[in-house]
Amino acid sequence: MDELRAGMADRSAADVRRRIRRGGFAGQTSGLAAGKVQGNVAILPADWADEFLRFCLQNPKPCPVLAVGRRGRPELPSLGEDIDIRSDVPRYRVFEHGREVASPTDIAAYWRDDLVAFVLGCSFSFEWALRDAGLRLRHTERGTVVPMYRTSIATHPTERLAGPMVVSMRPFRPADAIRAIQISARYPGVHGAPVHIGLPGAIGIADIDRPDFGERSEVGEDELPVFWACGVTPQAVVEAARPPFFISHFPGSMLITDLDNAALAV
Amino acid sequence: MDELRAGMADRSAADVRRRIRRGGFAGQTSGLAAGKVQGNVAILPADWADEFLRFCLQNPKPCPVLAVGRRGRPELPSLGEDIDIRSDVPRYRVFEHGREVASPTDIAAYWRDDLVAFVLGCSFSFEWALRDAGLRLRHTERGTVVPMYRTSIATHPTERLAGPMVVSMRPFRPADAIRAIQISARYPGVHGAPVHIGLPGAIGIADIDRPDFGERSEVGEDELPVFWACGVTPQAVVEAARPPFFISHFPGSMLITDLDNAALAV
Repeated sequence: MDELRAGMADRSAADVRRRIRRGGFAGQTSGLAAGKVQGNVAILPADWADEFLRFCLQNPKPCPVLAVGRRGRPELPSLGEDIDIRSDVPRYRVFEHGREVASPTDIAAYWRDDLVAFVLGCSFSFEWALRDAGLRLRHTERGTVVPMYRTSIATHPTERLAGPMVVSMRPFRPADAIRAIQISARYPGVHGAPVHIGLPGAIGIADIDRPDFGERSEVGEDELPVFWACGVTPQAVVEAARPPFFISHFPGSMLITDLDNAALAV
Repeated sequence: MDELRAGMADRSAADVRRRIRRGGFAGQTSGLAAGKVQGNVAILPADWADEFLRFCLQNPKPCPVLAVGRRGRPELPSLGEDIDIRSDVPRYRVFEHGREVASPTDIAAYWRDDLVAFVLGCSFSFEWALRDAGLRLRHTERGTVVPMYRTSIATHPTERLAGPMVVSMRPFRPADAIRAIQISARYPGVHGAPVHIGLPGAIGIADIDRPDFGERSEVGEDELPVFWACGVTPQAVVEAARPPFFISHFPGSMLITDLDNAALAV
């Protein structure tokens, strides 16, 4: 698997998508098609889609919208000419009334004329920018999943969508934390600047060493924990709302787009 | 005095300079000619000026150069058409071999053909930007002088100029601290982004409540101290180097330029 992944780091996004589409890869996409934007996927019936879009627009930090498909259409031309959202994600999760009913590698069998596909920005892009600027990411270096926490920060709710913001945490020494804020601020399309720094208790995090999702990242005595809004937020909010039907990407298995991370900088 | 100051808030920079030039004002310039860039002043003999310029360029955070005059010339046309650096600062400090020998309101009597005038960016500009973005500055609200500290951060030395970086501190709640970093980062010409946040001990500050200059600003339990490089740094470095002759502005009595703070944003 690692050899397969290594072989795909230098492939074009279209190449990697083709391989995924043919069923040749069903794993994590981190590091594939280096430098290209990857996105979180959410697919909802039209009667939920409008509300979800409003939810995203009023919560841009956890839910930065990169693209919205047309009703019933699997294409996302602004992200890549050939994209078919029914087959181009390595693995999906299918939910009915809030319960996961399948985790297929293709959703052609689940597609319906009333579905709308959303692609939201993901932390891979700003992490690329941080590494490119010479900053070190502990979870990447340790090969662990970034720690994520439910917070006491409420999202701006819509009629049926509400819930706490989930954040990811990366520890940095103070001067690097300032650089990380400056750099990620240039990427509002992929979560942008952090929402919090230091003082985990102030956003309802009781124990920094016990994340709600992902794995622990040690925070040294000379470091501050830096917290970014996380794409798990919309996923958790939609799951909690229990719409009759909902499809998301499988954690870590994102849609790989043709966009360059560098081109997202404002 | 306060009435006089209030009357000058809405005056043009050129108006305020004219009044200062005529000897009609010798106090602090904070709040005068609202929205205009104010600068720290340093005047050195030519045989020190080249080295001072190199020192500033290799330490841009504490020493952001806004303008350098020509040798022996009191004009600074890029900062204001009519500026005469010998008379347009409310009060000066004159040093000989590191000893202060006078604090006049005009330096015509001290001017020499070998002097070079420097104007460096000052925190008033980024504080304007922070306030304009709705952030609250404790020292301004309390009417105190911002607390400043000598740190363990060394400046990049030249042959004769060396010394620790001096920083100013403003306390903010974490989300506001992140905003303050983003906003001040847009103003590299006036100290730019902070150099440190949280953990005062990590930069050699033993007691946050005992600043080396200025007055204490309380840091609440829900706040982080945020540290910016300070224009006192070059002043302290030059004083310590004891050049035969050196003139600076009197603390708080800056040169008011025609530049708009807003125009400094990158």
